[in-house]
Amino acid sequence: MSLRLDPWGHFAIEEYSKLFEQFGISPIDALIEKLPQEHYMFKRRIVFGHRDFDKWLSMLKKGEKVAVLTGFMPSGHTHLGHLILIEELRYLQSIGAHVKMAVADAEAYAVRRLPRDKTIEYGLEYIAHAIAWGLDPEKTEFYFQTAQEKEYYRLIQMFSRKITMAEMEAIYGEISPAKIIASLTQASDILHLQLDKYGGYKHVLVPVGADQDPHIRLTRDIADRFEHELGLKRPFSIYHKFIRGLDGKKMSSSKPDYAIFLLDDERTIRKKIMNALTGGRPTAEEQRRLGGDPSNCTVYELYMYLLYRNDKELLELYSDCRNGRILCGQCKRNAYELLIRVIKEHREKFESIYDPKYLKQYVVIPDF
Amino acid sequence: MSLRLDPWGHFAIEEYSKLFEQFGISPIDALIEKLPQEHYMFKRRIVFGHRDFDKWLSMLKKGEKVAVLTGFMPSGHTHLGHLILIEELRYLQSIGAHVKMAVADAEAYAVRRLPRDKTIEYGLEYIAHAIAWGLDPEKTEFYFQTAQEKEYYRLIQMFSRKITMAEMEAIYGEISPAKIIASLTQASDILHLQLDKYGGYKHVLVPVGADQDPHIRLTRDIADRFEHELGLKRPFSIYHKFIRGLDGKKMSSSKPDYAIFLLDDERTIRKKIMNALTGGRPTAEEQRRLGGDPSNCTVYELYMYLLYRNDKELLELYSDCRNGRILCGQCKRNAYELLIRVIKEHREKFESIYDPKYLKQYVVIPDF
Repeated sequence: MSLRLDPWGHFAIEEYSKLFEQFGISPIDALIEKLPQEHYMFKRRIVFGHRDFDKWLSMLKKGEKVAVLTGFMPSGHTHLGHLILIEELRYLQSIGAHVKMAVADAEAYAVRRLPRDKTIEYGLEYIAHAIAWGLDPEKTEFYFQTAQEKEYYRLIQMFSRKITMAEMEAIYGEISPAKIIASLTQASDILHLQLDKYGGYKHVLVPVGADQDPHIRLTRDIADRFEHELGLKRPFSIYHKFIRGLDGKKMSSSKPDYAIFLLDDERTIRKKIMNALTGGRPTAEEQRRLGGDPSNCTVYELYMYLLYRNDKELLELYSDCRNGRILCGQCKRNAYELLIRVIKEHREKFESIYDPKYLKQYVVIPDF
Repeated sequence: MSLRLDPWGHFAIEEYSKLFEQFGISPIDALIEKLPQEHYMFKRRIVFGHRDFDKWLSMLKKGEKVAVLTGFMPSGHTHLGHLILIEELRYLQSIGAHVKMAVADAEAYAVRRLPRDKTIEYGLEYIAHAIAWGLDPEKTEFYFQTAQEKEYYRLIQMFSRKITMAEMEAIYGEISPAKIIASLTQASDILHLQLDKYGGYKHVLVPVGADQDPHIRLTRDIADRFEHELGLKRPFSIYHKFIRGLDGKKMSSSKPDYAIFLLDDERTIRKKIMNALTGGRPTAEEQRRLGGDPSNCTVYELYMYLLYRNDKELLELYSDCRNGRILCGQCKRNAYELLIRVIKEHREKFESIYDPKYLKQYVVIPDF
């Protein structure tokens, strides 16, 4: 079976093969059976690689305190790409990890140069979506990078002592004061949970996209260098692929026509899906005869990443598409119906949660 | 009268003339008469230059809220060099300024690589000396850079956005992540008082040595760039000379034989003074005949910076030395007697103050 014919989307991992070879990221395959509870994102290789995830899992099984730290950039309204990460976190919480979620508002301000009030607004929206999607707010910690306590900033100061400009340049190419502070802030995000003050979680897993691996490597180096002084241990990481935008490129709030936002109205979602890039043929006749190509179809990705949790259903769709038994129009309408159902249910919960008065219980909202 | 013959020590300013010409620091001369209360450090040009100090003084006279921010590096036990700065602060407090004193412990750790526990110990010692010397602890704010609130760190993050690597390199030559964070931390030291949260002091004066002027320039640039966003105004500065060590070079705790520490015992102080570099002649006979050179005498500096507050006394000593009427041995013994009296009185107060339990009322002591 060639990679391109794999309904689980292994095909896209091909692009990531150099990560395995050059950077020492391990394929997730051998660990899928070791999960305490199966999850479609692992099985379908949406989560495709890891660093020392096996060790983290064995800590979890031993009943040690384990945590998950994730950060997200509050650069726009929450879209499906974010939701996939939230689902990953929900799963990791369900198997027993303590989850802590950082809003990278310092980075958004300093490096991305986003207006401050917007970064706070987007951050709160994201937190509200996470809670609405099923993260237990009583068990999850949320914070903004700009509203932490002094120990968190102390780490940034300390880390700066043991990192050189050459290392920074190797990671970031052209650097700036803002990038240096952002990267050390990110290291503090990942490592601060290990301090007693923040719970003393020594086994911290970071779910990231492969593009974030340089940060992980930097942070692992920093942990090594502060092992003696602060008792820090290397973080663990798992790597996920990103659901693509409806144009087949990275889903991003900077291209709103090709991203599905969780607060889009039905009409907008319908329009976006109907215009989505698919693996269909130029004519219905051709498609019936030759079949479609789900491996290059953004609508198929909606099913794979979110809409079909049942593998049998997904496999059937894959087969129907390949064999020309379903055309893109029908497939899109089905996706729309399923997605709207998911989003409607989600949004009902979201409405009551997305309220600063309510969220204030769970997160310190920065004031400037 | 040539500069070298000036009993007020103007001679040393010669070295600083390029500061006036190249960097736009103004001589203090015209402002001495404008001080609400005279002070020997200004009259003797120990404070020799300024940036916009006239404006700060007029704010003070108008009854506006004015503040003084100073930082010191906790790199060793407190010595006479520190005491001179403390006296400067005491004076500025007495004429109505709000005084805030930073312990640059983040910088000491990250850039100077000093052990953490030592930086805290030295910081507390310095604060205790400042209180014992007459800074009113009820009216003075003390803080460690590593034990501030989030708004202070927020400024560091924000400032990083509007500073380039080229600017950093122009100031520091070879830079490092630690230096970048230290310099932005210093900018936050100087500017954070302007935030409402920290008292809203818009007119902040920074007394520094001339070697610190690049920081002042950087901070003034940063203030300009955040005028709109944060309402920041440029800080004001005054520049002091440093009392030299007893070897005629910079007084520093790294050369303990030539620095007089406030906790040195009498025997040690006596020995150090008796060994001090003076402007004396090789023999007593020559000195009686030709006179000594107070302008190159570290003992004369003790009188000028600290021991003789009365100008007439200082002038007499100067004249006696120049005319060979006093020899170095006698002059040293006199200095020793005066200094011991000052230090004994000071130390009695210090003993009851230098106690973390007492100091905790006035400063948040960092815990790691």
